Amino acid sequence: MSRLEEQFEFIKEIDKEKAIIRQNYITAADRRETDSDHAWHLAMMTILLSEYSAEPIDVLKTVTMVLIHDIVEIDAGDTYAYDEKAAVDQHERERLAAERIFGLLPGDQCAKFRALWEEFEARETPEAKFARTMDHIQPLMLNDATDGRAWREHGVRLSSVLKRNTDTGEVSEELWDYAKANFIEPNVKNGNIIDDIKN
Amino acid sequence: MSRLEEQFEFIKEIDKEKAIIRQNYITAADRRETDSDHAWHLAMMTILLSEYSAEPIDVLKTVTMVLIHDIVEIDAGDTYAYDEKAAVDQHERERLAAERIFGLLPGDQCAKFRALWEEFEARETPEAKFARTMDHIQPLMLNDATDGRAWREHGVRLSSVLKRNTDTGEVSEELWDYAKANFIEPNVKNGNIIDDIKN
Repeated sequence: MSRLEEQFEFIKEIDKEKAIIRQNYITAADRRETDSDHAWHLAMMTILLSEYSAEPIDVLKTVTMVLIHDIVEIDAGDTYAYDEKAAVDQHERERLAAERIFGLLPGDQCAKFRALWEEFEARETPEAKFARTMDHIQPLMLNDATDGRAWREHGVRLSSVLKRNTDTGEVSEELWDYAKANFIEPNVKNGNIIDDIKN
Repeated sequence: MSRLEEQFEFIKEIDKEKAIIRQNYITAADRRETDSDHAWHLAMMTILLSEYSAEPIDVLKTVTMVLIHDIVEIDAGDTYAYDEKAAVDQHERERLAAERIFGLLPGDQCAKFRALWEEFEARETPEAKFARTMDHIQPLMLNDATDGRAWREHGVRLSSVLKRNTDTGEVSEELWDYAKANFIEPNVKNGNIIDDIKN
C-alpha cells in the first residue's frame, strides 16, 4: 500500500470511535456521549484552558494527545471511570489495540501516535498531565450539566471522585478549585454524588 | 463573571454541537454523523495529512479552525452541501450565531475564534484552504465507506460533487487525485452518484 492508502485506511478505521458509547449523558439530546464527542470536547478545552497549566505545555501536542487518547477503545471498549473490575486487564487490552490500530499508519506516524498515547498513559510530562486533567474535568462538567444522571445511575461516591482527581490540583490549582466548587460540591449537597466521607 | 466562568459557559454551550445531525452516515452504527463526530475526524485528518498541503500550514491553527468551524450550526443548523435553497441565507444565520456563541468567551478568545471562523469562511489563507479541503474530502470518504447511502437518498449528481471540489486540487493535487480515484469514480460507476456529465 502507498503512504496515502495507509493513512486513509487509518482514517476510515477510526470512524468506529463514533460508535463507542461512554457513561456520561450529553446536554442537548437524550443519549450518552460517544468517544468522538468526548475527544472533540477535550481538544476544545485544551485550546481554551492551556493558560491555566502550572507548567508550560505544547498545545498542539496536547491537543493531538486528547484527540487520539481513546482510539484504543475501538478494540478495548470504554472502561467506566468507576468500574474497578474492568480496570484490571484494561491496560493489556488497550496495549494490543494500540498495536493494531496505530499499526495501520505509515511507520513514522505509527511511532509518533503510539509514543504520544504511551506518554498520555504514563502521566509524567506536563502535556500528559494537562490532557489527563481535561479528561477528568470534562465529565465532571457534563455530569453537573445533566443533573448528575450518570452519577446517580452508578451510585458514584465522593471518595471515588476525589481519588480519580488526586493530581488535578497539581496540574492547575485554579481549575481544580473551580471544578470542586461548581461541579462536585453542589452535587454532593443535592445527593447526586454519595457523600461517603462526611465530617 | 470571571474569566474562567466565561470559558466554562462556552465549554458547556458547545456541548450542543453533539446533537447537530449531518447527512452522512457513520460506518459502525446505523445513524447519521454529528457535527462533533465530523469536527473530531477533520482534526485527525489535518494532523495526519498536513504534509500534502501545496503551501506550508500552521497545523495548530488549522486544527483549531476545523474544531470550531461548525459551532455556528448550534444556532444556524446544518446546511446540506447540496441544498441550494438553504444556502441562500446561510451566511447571515451563521454570522449571528458566531456573534452570540463566540461572544460567551472572554474578549481575547472571542476575538481569536471569530477571526479564525471568518478566515475559514473566506477560504483565502493556506490554513483556511486546507481546512476546507479536509471538510470536503472527509464526507467523500465516509459516503464511499457507507455505500453512498446519503448520496443515494439525496440523488446527488456528479456535477455538484465536482463543483463543490473546484479548489481541492489546488490545495493538494495528490489528495484530490486520491479522492477522485477512490471515493468519487467508483460511486459514479455503480450509480451511487448520478452521472450527469457523461462524455
